[in-house]
Amino acid sequence: MIRKTTQLRRLLESPKLEFLMEAHNGLSAKIVEEAGFSGIWGSGLAISAAFGVRDNNEASWTQVLETVEFMSDATTIPILLDADTGFGNFNNVRRLVRKLEQINVGGMCIEDKLFPKTNSFIKGEQQPLADPIEFGGKVKAAKDSQQDPDFCVVARVEAFIAGWGLDEALKRASIYHDAGADAILIHSKISTAEQVLDFKKEWQDRCPVVIVPTMYHNTPTSVFRDAGFSISIWANQLLRTAIISMQQAAGKIFADESVAEIEKQIVPVKEVFRLQNASELQQAEKKYLPPTKEQPLVDPVR
Amino acid sequence: MIRKTTQLRRLLESPKLEFLMEAHNGLSAKIVEEAGFSGIWGSGLAISAAFGVRDNNEASWTQVLETVEFMSDATTIPILLDADTGFGNFNNVRRLVRKLEQINVGGMCIEDKLFPKTNSFIKGEQQPLADPIEFGGKVKAAKDSQQDPDFCVVARVEAFIAGWGLDEALKRASIYHDAGADAILIHSKISTAEQVLDFKKEWQDRCPVVIVPTMYHNTPTSVFRDAGFSISIWANQLLRTAIISMQQAAGKIFADESVAEIEKQIVPVKEVFRLQNASELQQAEKKYLPPTKEQPLVDPVR
Amino acid sequence: MIRKTTQLRRLLESPKLEFLMEAHNGLSAKIVEEAGFSGIWGSGLAISAAFGVRDNNEASWTQVLETVEFMSDATTIPILLDADTGFGNFNNVRRLVRKLEQINVGGMCIEDKLFPKTNSFIKGEQQPLADPIEFGGKVKAAKDSQQDPDFCVVARVEAFIAGWGLDEALKRASIYHDAGADAILIHSKISTAEQVLDFKKEWQDRCPVVIVPTMYHNTPTSVFRDAGFSISIWANQLLRTAIISMQQAAGKIFADESVAEIEKQIVPVKEVFRLQNASELQQAEKKYLPPTKEQPLVDPVR
Amino acid sequence: MIRKTTQLRRLLESPKLEFLMEAHNGLSAKIVEEAGFSGIWGSGLAISAAFGVRDNNEASWTQVLETVEFMSDATTIPILLDADTGFGNFNNVRRLVRKLEQINVGGMCIEDKLFPKTNSFIKGEQQPLADPIEFGGKVKAAKDSQQDPDFCVVARVEAFIAGWGLDEALKRASIYHDAGADAILIHSKISTAEQVLDFKKEWQDRCPVVIVPTMYHNTPTSVFRDAGFSISIWANQLLRTAIISMQQAAGKIFADESVAEIEKQIVPVKEVFRLQNASELQQAEKKYLPPTKEQPLVDPVR
Repeated sequence: MIRKTTQLRRLLESPKLEFLMEAHNGLSAKIVEEAGFSGIWGSGLAISAAFGVRDNNEASWTQVLETVEFMSDATTIPILLDADTGFGNFNNVRRLVRKLEQINVGGMCIEDKLFPKTNSFIKGEQQPLADPIEFGGKVKAAKDSQQDPDFCVVARVEAFIAGWGLDEALKRASIYHDAGADAILIHSKISTAEQVLDFKKEWQDRCPVVIVPTMYHNTPTSVFRDAGFSISIWANQLLRTAIISMQQAAGKIFADESVAEIEKQIVPVKEVFRLQNASELQQAEKKYLPPTKEQPLVDPVR
Repeated sequence: MIRKTTQLRRLLESPKLEFLMEAHNGLSAKIVEEAGFSGIWGSGLAISAAFGVRDNNEASWTQVLETVEFMSDATTIPILLDADTGFGNFNNVRRLVRKLEQINVGGMCIEDKLFPKTNSFIKGEQQPLADPIEFGGKVKAAKDSQQDPDFCVVARVEAFIAGWGLDEALKRASIYHDAGADAILIHSKISTAEQVLDFKKEWQDRCPVVIVPTMYHNTPTSVFRDAGFSISIWANQLLRTAIISMQQAAGKIFADESVAEIEKQIVPVKEVFRLQNASELQQAEKKYLPPTKEQPLVDPVR
Repeated sequence: MIRKTTQLRRLLESPKLEFLMEAHNGLSAKIVEEAGFSGIWGSGLAISAAFGVRDNNEASWTQVLETVEFMSDATTIPILLDADTGFGNFNNVRRLVRKLEQINVGGMCIEDKLFPKTNSFIKGEQQPLADPIEFGGKVKAAKDSQQDPDFCVVARVEAFIAGWGLDEALKRASIYHDAGADAILIHSKISTAEQVLDFKKEWQDRCPVVIVPTMYHNTPTSVFRDAGFSISIWANQLLRTAIISMQQAAGKIFADESVAEIEKQIVPVKEVFRLQNASELQQAEKKYLPPTKEQPLVDPVR
Repeated sequence: MIRKTTQLRRLLESPKLEFLMEAHNGLSAKIVEEAGFSGIWGSGLAISAAFGVRDNNEASWTQVLETVEFMSDATTIPILLDADTGFGNFNNVRRLVRKLEQINVGGMCIEDKLFPKTNSFIKGEQQPLADPIEFGGKVKAAKDSQQDPDFCVVARVEAFIAGWGLDEALKRASIYHDAGADAILIHSKISTAEQVLDFKKEWQDRCPVVIVPTMYHNTPTSVFRDAGFSISIWANQLLRTAIISMQQAAGKIFADESVAEIEKQIVPVKEVFRLQNASELQQAEKKYLPPTKEQPLVDPVR
């Protein structure tokens, strides 16, 4: 099997536009793979929201990695982890890279904000960014730490998010590229693709450029393809569809005091078992377990 | 605020039929609370499925508790944890109770199967059960360990699941009741309520009786109410609706190579922020943080 | 039993000089209690060193807390946790306080350095400190978050460590005291008690003052007592004696290719069992377990 | 660098008697390596005792593995993990093997007792053993799960511990050998080497045989060498020397109300830093961090 790092690198370097789909636990990761996607976006927002905490590093980095480990175990396609700011300074990033390699994650994206991070769509323009020189050191430290040559480090530029212009975005991207970043993720929160297109036009093909069209989702994908972006990340839609479906189901069950109606609309229990690969275990039990012994009932043991 | 243990005890002891709704992470737990439910079922099946592993104790008990801790932190209503077999023998159960009390869980349900457990709906009749005397010791150890007098220990009888009859079910329930169980959960996997109704008729009101009508979900709730059951658990429907919605969304996004259509059907990003209680943090920042300092741009730091 | 928070508060507020002894895991914590100490210093340096990582927040905060949980479970005296900088900003501190209360920790000490922290005895004078206003916000957030009124928040002033003088130390201490700190830990790395004595003389009795005489350990304890300090922390000596004894034993066993000589100098295995409280379990087994059944030998099962 | 699995396999297969030294955290593991040993015994007893819990699977298997991960990260020599019974059935063992490979552990030893385990030196003869056929299935499942061909699975025979004779020991060893075990660990708790020597004489060289001479530590090592054992494990001596040294130091510091005397006998703080490899980080900071900015003092920020 092709290593997940190599799979992710190929997606980054492929001439065509590729897509990563968000997942936030082992189950959603498997659903992403089964839908046909070639890679998974381990979303910081979605993972923290699934935990029930905020996207401000309220969960520890090892708690995040434990979830990512379950995601990686459940799938055969690569994960690009949204690793926020790297959870500290360059030294935390060095440790992070080694841990991600161990749990078979394809790569990570780190962003030039400050720890603890704030979601890019919350009070964006007031957000202070990282010193770009310090962030370049983080990128370099990450690249120097990886043992698998194909592990990918994507540097996310938050200049537009924080209210700065194209010039600042390009300068930051250059510093991170020079530090060894395998790709630049240029983030934007306006409702059109204007900022990312401007960036791509100036950046040209110095390295692959990744986008996250959450706010400018109405831009046709052909525009991204024509502009030569490498990867488009669908960053949180599975979480958001799970939310609405759970809200509606919980509301209906509460009102009905019954699951009879909802049962008609949801997957059967055996679909849960299938996603868990229960049948493999039943086969394995035949191979590894001796026959079951007789059952201790109440009377015999008394 | 009323302690969660006390809240759960009141549900168990209330004269009317109460309902617990399944959750499997902090997010779904909060959705359960917002829907109006008075309590949460911390489902072993759903938690393991969300991890992407099987319902066979593949995740460690501390990994399960970490998820339950997030669930408890995100909500103000009590959780009844599906604690499988107690994750070992009576001594493991003693430690488990102390840990559940620390993370503010209302109570736990343990079942008379063997560790590692197998889901009750998989190869039920071949499943060996626990020695009921040993299981009674587990129940007693749990009760002796709790420090909060209202922490609830529910003993789940798997006799019907394993193919035995009413007599075995009643004998086991008696042993567990004598050992101090606060309630009996009588489980059944047939498509009618016949077994649980037979049990309730014989058991009468010796202690509260809890049911999980997953397989007999077409039985009208009035039947449960009339029979005098204490709590009906909707055990896995939020997971199952999340699955189908994520499968459909992932499929559509993959086919469309766009999220434009899906965006119309899912909650907006700001609803995620609302569920995370992001606004509280924005208020708190005004209270606890000094004003942001000026931004280091690229040029100034060079 | 008196709550651990209350126990710690009494130590802080008692008119006589009290002592906390370092521990770094459940075992050393129990040894501290058995030696007669009234409280435990959960040392960040010692816990990280025991893990085998640096005192630079290489371990995550939840990994640290997992160790502190074992320490708290193993003992009945209070722990004051060395919580570094609070592992992030004021919001991380709020979550930290709630988690420490859950695992029954008496209080925490946070220091006015930057995350990730550097040990105070490494490149001290080059260390940048936290903005004192921001750190005051952290202290206030901690105090506002505690649910147990006796949970203690100790603010550690690193001004001397970073090369600043008495004036800066006093100004910082004042800000933290005004923010609600229950005590000030004034740290110093010179080989005499001069700095801490100067501080105490000026500070007087505005609130309890805690010291860590690692570097000025030759100062007689009577000096600290006479100066009116509240608590003296022996911050890392158990770790350091464990290191030398393990180095010597490992060296000797390696050279001897035998443990025969070492066995005469170390505690017997049964002392390990005693520290683990194995006998309680043996008693409990008689209470909660049914008699052991006959043994399946090789032949019978074939 | 030679893979740790391969290093461990070479120790097992080398014609000369090799030694593994116990460690229970990252720090002691590093001390083992620095003393010159070629491998580490990740002792279940010592790890649980360090946590402050009993050697009865009170800590979860993921908590144990987290400690083993720190041990592996801190060292370059292989760890043979004492994995108790495998923490469940064959399926738990399959997951365990994959996780151990990820954290770079050389191999594991599993024993034919029941979960939750009891230490072999506590009430040995009353201990029920595992069904040997079922345990053979566990061994086979472990071997089938490993991805690194050199990962070592050692099967520990507890027949002597449980009061059975040579015949039962040999029969069990044969079953486990046939199932694919890379080596047999024959355990004994009598004060002479008689049982293990009898076993080795009959077993001959069917596969490597490992011993743990804790109780028969007075037997000269030459006896083990002459008998052709593969590895002798010094199973818990570093823990036991750490205990006595910490007990003595804590007692003295408590009595003295001073560390002045103890400071003369223990390693200096800088030896802790050396063991943590602090100097590497100081070098790395020069490489990856920009120069420190000016310090915010109290006055400027007001």
